[in-house]
Amino acid sequence: MIRVLFADKPENWARYERPLTEAIAATGVEAQIVQPGEIDPAQVDYVVYSPQGPVQDFTAYTGAKAVLNLWAGVERVVGNETLTQPLCRMVDAGLERGMVDYVTGHVLRYHLGIDATLAQQDGVWRHDGGVPPLARDRSVVMLGLGALGKACAEALAGLGFAVTGWSRSPKDIPGITCLNGDDGLAEALSKAEILVSILPDTPETTELLNADTLVQMPKGARIINPGRGTLIDDDALLAALDRGQIGHATLDVFRAEPLPPEHPYWAHPHVTVTPHIAAESRAETASEVIAENIRRGEAGEPFLYLVDRSRGY
Amino acid sequence: MIRVLFADKPENWARYERPLTEAIAATGVEAQIVQPGEIDPAQVDYVVYSPQGPVQDFTAYTGAKAVLNLWAGVERVVGNETLTQPLCRMVDAGLERGMVDYVTGHVLRYHLGIDATLAQQDGVWRHDGGVPPLARDRSVVMLGLGALGKACAEALAGLGFAVTGWSRSPKDIPGITCLNGDDGLAEALSKAEILVSILPDTPETTELLNADTLVQMPKGARIINPGRGTLIDDDALLAALDRGQIGHATLDVFRAEPLPPEHPYWAHPHVTVTPHIAAESRAETASEVIAENIRRGEAGEPFLYLVDRSRGY
Ligand SMILES: NC(=O)c1ccc[n+]([C@@H]2O[C@H](COP(=O)([O-])OP(=O)(O)OC[C@H]3O[C@@H](n4cnc5c(N)ncnc54)[C@H](OP(=O)(O)O)[C@@H]3O)[C@@H](O)[C@H]2O)c1
Ligand SMILES: NC(=O)c1ccc[n+]([C@@H]2O[C@H](COP(=O)([O-])OP(=O)(O)OC[C@H]3O[C@@H](n4cnc5c(N)ncnc54)[C@H](OP(=O)(O)O)[C@@H]3O)[C@@H](O)[C@H]2O)c1
Repeated sequence: MIRVLFADKPENWARYERPLTEAIAATGVEAQIVQPGEIDPAQVDYVVYSPQGPVQDFTAYTGAKAVLNLWAGVERVVGNETLTQPLCRMVDAGLERGMVDYVTGHVLRYHLGIDATLAQQDGVWRHDGGVPPLARDRSVVMLGLGALGKACAEALAGLGFAVTGWSRSPKDIPGITCLNGDDGLAEALSKAEILVSILPDTPETTELLNADTLVQMPKGARIINPGRGTLIDDDALLAALDRGQIGHATLDVFRAEPLPPEHPYWAHPHVTVTPHIAAESRAETASEVIAENIRRGEAGEPFLYLVDRSRGY
Repeated sequence: MIRVLFADKPENWARYERPLTEAIAATGVEAQIVQPGEIDPAQVDYVVYSPQGPVQDFTAYTGAKAVLNLWAGVERVVGNETLTQPLCRMVDAGLERGMVDYVTGHVLRYHLGIDATLAQQDGVWRHDGGVPPLARDRSVVMLGLGALGKACAEALAGLGFAVTGWSRSPKDIPGITCLNGDDGLAEALSKAEILVSILPDTPETTELLNADTLVQMPKGARIINPGRGTLIDDDALLAALDRGQIGHATLDVFRAEPLPPEHPYWAHPHVTVTPHIAAESRAETASEVIAENIRRGEAGEPFLYLVDRSRGY
């Protein structure tokens, strides 16, 4: 009988109780799921972790075989010096589909000019006889081709968009122009009519979108950021929006969340704020990922989605 | 040397001149493209037709081998008693992709609640911890599974939506639940969280969406109509919107176009009007379809996309 500590926010237990219990049982591993405070930390075999949860110091978890993050991003735990156990992140089919919905929806919103349509319900029939560009005429760039970026890039290519992706290591994904490294970034930026950033927060990605890089994008380009707030130099983006260098930005993630009510993004006419809802782990599918990693740990098999501490993601 | 009459609005000739000339030349058929008034109608071999164009009486075109419509819809010509020649409609890859962009964009707009997002840029971080439905949890119904409806249904299924289609004849399309006939319509309506109508305008489809059918849809359902204005009983839709039976409608086509400024759709808070822009024939791709039908006509081969006058589409 192993002990699995559920260390997300307590109010999330109601959503996870049944799926997590069932998913672990389905692997054949006998486990007791406990809440923080219920048992001696030294007796815990696996910590199901969330950056919002109560356990942020792992010193007392001397017997833990792994820390299993319920979130895809690990920036708030990867540098935690009390954490000496293997750290696995979440790669969840539900989370991935949520991200694809968000990214394709907002790319199509920009592509079709839906905001202008909604603002122009004034009785004027605006049909100039021109033919609007098709998806294939629209260049979309994905920064990040990981679990989420690749799924979004493929969905956009499936809709016919001309998709270019950029990542750290070289990639070969059918239907996507894949770039990497510094030269790759310059080329990607220069083509980005619509730019989507789904990079993790690491020292290298911090403020990747700054005054120098924003100016390399086509004038009036649109930005969608469901990655992390730190990817953007906020002052530089606001200045680029005011100049029209960037036409519009849809931002889901911020340095401080909730985004404070006085932050200029809220009132900016060319910014859409969404409250970190692009993609959420789904209890059903996330529980299966957690359970599979517990099964692997017990069977002595390598963990899935192990974080590389030196890269930071 | 055959004579092809270009009978669209004269201002569209600039867009068509090069692609149509080149596309016909590429078939090997020697042709002269003429404008209305330039030659005796009896000498015309093919009429490239548009419902907006100057030729609506075909009596004098005694030598014409076919009338080739630049538009997908044929309701304004199919009952024309002066037309005795074969009538072909437009099935154009560019038009199809435009329709897919429009339909997927507006379905995702409804799915993600983008209108509410745009209206809520007020500094309030609305994140209740709930997990929004994924595309697979969202039931989308396509009325019409022709060239355009099928392409849209497939694109939506590719994005993961639960797609049901409805047509006159039975169909079998992988990944789509296909229904037909009266029973099929009742079942389709009952599932339509989001309903897209891409039916042609025929006596049978007139006011298919009326007080009796709208009430069969789930409360708060959303409607996207890029088919034809006649598919909807406008008074019934307005009443259903006012009651909340229908949550929102995005309408691209109307009984009278341009939609008059005083029409209640413009000012209705739950209606989005778009000015018949869902899908436009593209001069490049449409010219290839016209040229191929001219080649077929000259070679004695059957025409593509021949309209069935008895069905009306
Ligand atoms: N808004 C939300 O609701 C939400 C939800 C979930 C996740 N997220 C964010 O999305 C991020 C990505 O998730 P994921 O599952 O796709 O992560 P992942 O699988 O680890 O992929 C990360 C991608 O970023 C690339 N990358 C990392 N550092 C780079 C650098 N310095 N230069 C160029 N490319 C770099 C990686 O390149 P390689 O492929 O070469 O390694 C990889 O393609 C998460 O870290 C999280 O911040 C947001
Ligand atoms: N808004 C725009 O910009 C725009 C642009 C282009 C076209 N359109 C409209 O879109 C319409 C559809 O174009 P398309 O190329 O897809 O036409 P299509 O290939 O002829 O397909 C018509 C579809 O409607 C179905 N249908 C016809 N009558 C029906 C009935 N009584 N009951 C049930 N189903 C019926 C047909 O069923 P079967 O398959 O069984 O025959 C077929 O699936 C055009 O007629 C036009 O009005 C709008």
